[in-house]
Amino acid sequence: MTTRGYTATKDQLQTRLRRIEGQVRGIERMVDEDRYCIDVLTQISAIQAALDKVALGLLDGHVRHCVTKSAAEGKSEEMSEELMAAVGRLMRRG
Amino acid sequence: MTTRGYTATKDQLQTRLRRIEGQVRGIERMVDEDRYCIDVLTQISAIQAALDKVALGLLDGHVRHCVTKSAAEGKSEEMSEELMAAVGRLMRRG
Amino acid sequence: MTTRGYTATKDQLQTRLRRIEGQVRGIERMVDEDRYCIDVLTQISAIQAALDKVALGLLDGHVRHCVTKSAAEGKSEEMSEELMAAVGRLMRRG
Amino acid sequence: MTTRGYTATKDQLQTRLRRIEGQVRGIERMVDEDRYCIDVLTQISAIQAALDKVALGLLDGHVRHCVTKSAAEGKSEEMSEELMAAVGRLMRRG
Repeated sequence: MTTRGYTATKDQLQTRLRRIEGQVRGIERMVDEDRYCIDVLTQISAIQAALDKVALGLLDGHVRHCVTKSAAEGKSEEMSEELMAAVGRLMRRG
Repeated sequence: MTTRGYTATKDQLQTRLRRIEGQVRGIERMVDEDRYCIDVLTQISAIQAALDKVALGLLDGHVRHCVTKSAAEGKSEEMSEELMAAVGRLMRRG
Repeated sequence: MTTRGYTATKDQLQTRLRRIEGQVRGIERMVDEDRYCIDVLTQISAIQAALDKVALGLLDGHVRHCVTKSAAEGKSEEMSEELMAAVGRLMRRG
Repeated sequence: MTTRGYTATKDQLQTRLRRIEGQVRGIERMVDEDRYCIDVLTQISAIQAALDKVALGLLDGHVRHCVTKSAAEGKSEEMSEELMAAVGRLMRRG
């Protein structure tokens, strides 16, 4: 098995992702029921916040696990470039 | 039936939401398969971008449909307050 | 004089902008004094939050003032397109 | 002198910050001249993008310089916590 930054908290991560999947289905139901636009938007913001939380957890595990390892292996430069690209995508959202 | 800002584009909206739901399930699979943290993060950024697009589409319909109506009814103030609160939540994500 | 969505709150807006200008100069001083990276980043986040607040205030004035006017003139479509482009830029930041 | 993650690129960083300061003054002028709300908002988005770039540069230097050092000193946990707090503030903007 490959060990990742999230391996130790994999169950918690999957629980969060399944909850987010449920939230997306919840929005599909709201649209089916012709709910008010602003209420649908509020739910989208809630999903965005939940995804940000998941992303920060993954980044945290990545830094603790992989960055430390790559520092020991003298690969800090590549690792940092890759990490910054990921943070940049999260800040600009895609 | 209640008409909403998204009524005219409801099918397209549901298609997008189902695709986003599929993207979340895709991330669950990536985690199951112990995929590299940075690749999981890239997918999360893609979902955030897709949700932003859905949110902008909903805002657009809301402004065209509801804001115009409320302007005609002299309710611009309440409508604008509600709209700004929604935009603020989207900018800060939740 | 041209009336804008921010005309009524112009003084408050200028005060906020001058404060933000001062915050940017504060960061230049921190860098001069070789302050800790994370503390500099915290100040950058504070400026971003202050700019978001200014942006939301401008959007609010724009919606109350210009959007209402354009609705009355039957130009809701152009106005909404322009507004959504602006909100999109604020969400993705540039 | 204290060495920071940005020490090697300090001149470039100061140049960018002074340019951002000038952009903020540019917005003050636009407001003075009663320029169109949407044009002011476009400039605010440009400043946000420039600040994001500065923040990413600072994060990059911090990770290469300080994170590597703290990994060597067995302080990865504190460092990662602090880094994630900073990234979280940048993602939510304040």
